[in-house]
Amino acid sequence: MPRYKLIIEYDGSDLVGWQRQKNGLSVQEVLEIAVERFCGETVVVHGAGRTDSGVHAIGQTAHLDLAHDYAPLEILGALNHHMKPAPVAVLGVERAADNFDARRSARGRTYRYRIINRRAPLAIDRGRAWHVGPELDVAAMHAAAQLLLGRHDFTTFRDSLCQAKSPVKTLDRLDVTREGDEISVVAEARSFLHHQVRNMVGTLKLVGAGKWRAEAVAAALAARDRREGGPTAPPEGLYLVRVVYQGE
Amino acid sequence: MPRYKLIIEYDGSDLVGWQRQKNGLSVQEVLEIAVERFCGETVVVHGAGRTDSGVHAIGQTAHLDLAHDYAPLEILGALNHHMKPAPVAVLGVERAADNFDARRSARGRTYRYRIINRRAPLAIDRGRAWHVGPELDVAAMHAAAQLLLGRHDFTTFRDSLCQAKSPVKTLDRLDVTREGDEISVVAEARSFLHHQVRNMVGTLKLVGAGKWRAEAVAAALAARDRREGGPTAPPEGLYLVRVVYQGE
Repeated sequence: MPRYKLIIEYDGSDLVGWQRQKNGLSVQEVLEIAVERFCGETVVVHGAGRTDSGVHAIGQTAHLDLAHDYAPLEILGALNHHMKPAPVAVLGVERAADNFDARRSARGRTYRYRIINRRAPLAIDRGRAWHVGPELDVAAMHAAAQLLLGRHDFTTFRDSLCQAKSPVKTLDRLDVTREGDEISVVAEARSFLHHQVRNMVGTLKLVGAGKWRAEAVAAALAARDRREGGPTAPPEGLYLVRVVYQGE
Repeated sequence: MPRYKLIIEYDGSDLVGWQRQKNGLSVQEVLEIAVERFCGETVVVHGAGRTDSGVHAIGQTAHLDLAHDYAPLEILGALNHHMKPAPVAVLGVERAADNFDARRSARGRTYRYRIINRRAPLAIDRGRAWHVGPELDVAAMHAAAQLLLGRHDFTTFRDSLCQAKSPVKTLDRLDVTREGDEISVVAEARSFLHHQVRNMVGTLKLVGAGKWRAEAVAAALAARDRREGGPTAPPEGLYLVRVVYQGE
């Protein structure tokens, strides 16, 4: 059975996240229904990351097996056609090795978190960024973020529902930058714990607002206790940007 | 009566445009209702540009008169509060001279038209850009655009419903650039005819797709006949970016 790798974009606002749920439409279900409409096969589409309800992606990656061999562009066109009007688009399709696994083969993941930092509420970017009114000190946020880099027990930033075997992860990048009203937090790691990016962003926002000093972030990390971390930033600011595989 | 200048952002997707209409909610109506809720006054909010249904703004400008003197930040907070949940935000408020008129005092307007040029349909940017599948030649579009600069009779790019007294306008800038999948057309002039930007973009798209040569654009302009121009680009790609006034 030929295996295919998909690159997927979605607006998560009205979706219950990547994974199939009983309470609403998920990206996985949208894709699986489209596959069935395309070729009549009932398949499982395996994603690289289980994004939460309201979280977006511009480069989610997934794999699936089909009984027949189709040209990648035929699959791309057919899935996009059959997914309408769901806010999900397949950006790319390619043949993958039989042992390629979107989740297990991943060597790195990049997330971006968007904050719009201005007094006025959001109109154009509503549901696509976190609106924070009071001015945030981006230099202080970036400096504090650097204290989280490296290999640590990230229990402080881990959701209680997280199913990962270990809370130890290696954070490779956590950059906070501003361009006009927009603050971006870019996070890179081989993998993340459940809610890790949103919990780190919620904590850095306290630093930006002058409520926490950078040392408090280091102390919270060292405490390995979720109650010592800041609140969880809302889902609408988070984007899964890219999943990187060996040889890329 | 103190006069105020407003800077306004809106997502035009579910609005009938700037101007009050009987068939749906307009930006003007949203603002006027908010003013009434704020201070009980029934006012007219005068906009600099009458954007069409589906067109967005990140820098629409308007003026209004109030019977009492309020601090600009109080007006900003109150209007944003009372406009919820409409996709309209007031970004700035300032006191203006009694003879300031958002439309008549304007010395320049900047529009941006966004095209997402890729095979896959839009998910994140749906309703916020024009999706064009076949690859467009941006260099050819930009070269053709330069033939439209200057003072001309723009009847070829003017909607039949346009109420301007004269079809003669001076186009100061029409730049076509690409960044990844996104093509931007930035247009600047003192003022534009109805549908002028969308009609120019629809024509340049024919050049980008290889269906028209640049000379055909010049010939269409010279014909001063709407039937000689290309089709009207859809509203969802258009953004009113900025209105400039004397002294700015």
